[in-house]
Amino acid sequence: MAPSSDALSPDAKRRHLVKHLGPEAVILSGDAMAPYLAEWRGRFPGRALAVLCPADTRAVSRAVACCADLGLAIVPQSGNTGLVGGGSPQDDADQVVLSLERMDRVRAIDPENNTLTVEAGCRLVDVQRAARDADRLFPLSLPSEAQCRIGGNLGSNAGGTNVLRYGNTRELALGLEVVLADGQVWSGLTGLRKDNSGLDLRDLFIGSEGTLGIITAAVFRLYPLPRDVQTALVAVPDPARAIALLRRLQADSGDTVTACELMNTLALELGRQQAGAAAGGIPDTAPWYLLVELASPNPHAGLREVLAHSLAEAQAAGEVNKSVVAVDPDQRQQLWSIREGIPGGQSQAGASIKHDISLPISRLPDFLAQAAERVRAEDPRVRLCTFGHVGDGNLHFNLSQPEGMARDAFLAQWTRYNDLIHDLVTGMGGSIAAEHGVGLLKAEALRRHKDPVELDLMRRIKQALDPENRLNPGKLIPGDEL
Amino acid sequence: MAPSSDALSPDAKRRHLVKHLGPEAVILSGDAMAPYLAEWRGRFPGRALAVLCPADTRAVSRAVACCADLGLAIVPQSGNTGLVGGGSPQDDADQVVLSLERMDRVRAIDPENNTLTVEAGCRLVDVQRAARDADRLFPLSLPSEAQCRIGGNLGSNAGGTNVLRYGNTRELALGLEVVLADGQVWSGLTGLRKDNSGLDLRDLFIGSEGTLGIITAAVFRLYPLPRDVQTALVAVPDPARAIALLRRLQADSGDTVTACELMNTLALELGRQQAGAAAGGIPDTAPWYLLVELASPNPHAGLREVLAHSLAEAQAAGEVNKSVVAVDPDQRQQLWSIREGIPGGQSQAGASIKHDISLPISRLPDFLAQAAERVRAEDPRVRLCTFGHVGDGNLHFNLSQPEGMARDAFLAQWTRYNDLIHDLVTGMGGSIAAEHGVGLLKAEALRRHKDPVELDLMRRIKQALDPENRLNPGKLIPGDEL
Repeated sequence: MAPSSDALSPDAKRRHLVKHLGPEAVILSGDAMAPYLAEWRGRFPGRALAVLCPADTRAVSRAVACCADLGLAIVPQSGNTGLVGGGSPQDDADQVVLSLERMDRVRAIDPENNTLTVEAGCRLVDVQRAARDADRLFPLSLPSEAQCRIGGNLGSNAGGTNVLRYGNTRELALGLEVVLADGQVWSGLTGLRKDNSGLDLRDLFIGSEGTLGIITAAVFRLYPLPRDVQTALVAVPDPARAIALLRRLQADSGDTVTACELMNTLALELGRQQAGAAAGGIPDTAPWYLLVELASPNPHAGLREVLAHSLAEAQAAGEVNKSVVAVDPDQRQQLWSIREGIPGGQSQAGASIKHDISLPISRLPDFLAQAAERVRAEDPRVRLCTFGHVGDGNLHFNLSQPEGMARDAFLAQWTRYNDLIHDLVTGMGGSIAAEHGVGLLKAEALRRHKDPVELDLMRRIKQALDPENRLNPGKLIPGDEL
Repeated sequence: MAPSSDALSPDAKRRHLVKHLGPEAVILSGDAMAPYLAEWRGRFPGRALAVLCPADTRAVSRAVACCADLGLAIVPQSGNTGLVGGGSPQDDADQVVLSLERMDRVRAIDPENNTLTVEAGCRLVDVQRAARDADRLFPLSLPSEAQCRIGGNLGSNAGGTNVLRYGNTRELALGLEVVLADGQVWSGLTGLRKDNSGLDLRDLFIGSEGTLGIITAAVFRLYPLPRDVQTALVAVPDPARAIALLRRLQADSGDTVTACELMNTLALELGRQQAGAAAGGIPDTAPWYLLVELASPNPHAGLREVLAHSLAEAQAAGEVNKSVVAVDPDQRQQLWSIREGIPGGQSQAGASIKHDISLPISRLPDFLAQAAERVRAEDPRVRLCTFGHVGDGNLHFNLSQPEGMARDAFLAQWTRYNDLIHDLVTGMGGSIAAEHGVGLLKAEALRRHKDPVELDLMRRIKQALDPENRLNPGKLIPGDEL
């Protein structure tokens, strides 16, 4: 029988959890709980009654039912590497963290169907490895891939560097297994490419940040392994010509461009410093840089020649100042290390006010010009560190602490700069949460920037699937009405 | 003020509609209504109080609000070419058809963002043409493309022949405009590739067959136009080797296979007869055939050589009996006319009991063997006409009326054969509604084949978005509980 939750002390609730879920699935000590209560940057610290670590789907189901009995809310968490606090419990003794890290099995792989089935606690790098071991590509790739776990990638619909060719996490997923707010299990682990036998529940749970259900496993698409990969770092005069170059490369190479990363001078410099990477023959005096990668499963695709030829024609057309094509995997890795070094380099250079935004690609040049002007008008000392997945219209438009300004004084302007940039983005038909999600960080900003009709639809769906608001309350969906 | 709907006669309701929506937006005469009340094959005949033809989104919103006042249910319809009765009104005087055919504008095209914005009543062929005029490809392609309209393609998440490379309608759509059950408009016409600023409402409305809202416009992805297209008809020994050939071609050609259509001997014969197509050098004695197409935006992709080389190696490996590569666009069209002629050829050959099913690709050979055996055990005279998009795991597994058996006697076995095949499909992890949808035809079959937890989720979402069950009642979501 369910105890009356109001009547129970926190300790009694903890004992109830241990009794029903087993001691191996319940973490109670402060030291052991600590890593689950804060994220790696120390932001969004919280507390929780307990951390639950179920080992399989049935145990997740039991844990959810048990929490319902006890009136506890649940914060699902997998790798705890997110950037918006989506996996952080809030300051509330009536929340538990439900960690999926013990559910880390690759359940099945079907190379002939080009699919694999993995549990939510599987590290992204292990999913990639399982695919590669079957001579297949799992294309999702992120800077945190060694730490993040696939459940979080699903919950946040993670993007990364290969979206241009393969899509976001949503486009890679075919089926899901989800534990619902009442503990029931939806077994939607289909490996089908076509299925119109109902409403699309899969895509509703993906990107819902654990607010509608707890994803415990997924079936993903796999692709042929690339066997011809070519990478170039290109200095370009401006963003408009960077986009023109992307379109040229897509057409010339038969749509094999898998990555197209834009960086401004400061981003390149910080990335280089962080990576300790050599200049690689590229002058650091251009205003913008593009890191492009072409890949084909056909080892005889001749992408090196295509890339060299295309870049030469682009240079003749004024789209390119200078370019270097990696001659071997080492140089390729060196070029990527510059891009991957940017976030770390930024941290070294002081505090940042960040914007993870997206726009129609056609609006990017105009946005970059207007946004720079707005920031300059506020404070000409603020340095822009701009980089991102330009082929997806997704920019990390980050403001770096001016030299000489105190860290706290700069960060105190977070909301003001956010509003400034987000208003511009919204006015241009863009998104204020492109790939990192909403979580705690932007839940309130949605009130300002989202169509009220859409917010109302979100609340109605939340109400339908989690009427008691037990799943990750306060995340993604704004409103105390919930 | 809203009149009390119970107090009004049907004629009074009609007058109310005309008064509030304008005479040009309300069709009342039997002759003028007839084309909207039956579909092209004469199945699912129904009646309706009126047919509404709003000319823009605001008029749709007014129409929906007006119907709510009058207690009328709404059957959204665009091209009325569907195969499952999703756009057919039922035998109920309290339903109206809401036709979107007057909303047929291309609202915007943004070649730099590779997107276009079209209204729901736009014919598919006109969407394709608008893209081509901007030197872009809109890849959705179906046999009914000259008649069907994009609203129906969205409502049913249409598939077609290019899904293998470009995805279903869902994967092509970026944003939607939807009139909700209460007449409110959700303006979600984003052209963004990355947007994690909320729940994924877009994909919930797509494929919902008008049961959750009325899609009035959409933003779609465009792609570079193919400039090298190569097509081959290949005789193969069996389905397993057809799949092996597909994987070989994908790897060899750098993932440029855009279509891969499997046909058994009868399907090929019927298609040929219907198309009046010449044999094209392919013997009609092989058990299975594959129509494959490779396409690249790079005119120098050399796909002809790739295809010829791959087919030669496949023949040496025993995957191919014989093949012919189209030498020019005329022959290419001739090969496609065989595939496109199959449904018509089937009608000529007598009645059919049809199954639009999908499976994990790895299960297809086993399914085909077991399904053929089950049908043979029931009645060895039944002829199998099997064809479909094998690269998507989607088959049209159709049973043709035995020679000598009466049409009605054969069709009387529809449900028995459906259950036989659908049970097998479900047991193998497949779908009983792959690309044509559920509509009226399969709504009840879902009760038998769908996880009750999933059905319950569908009902809860329907209840949240259309609490009075006014939008396309009886379609897609089984249950009089609604």
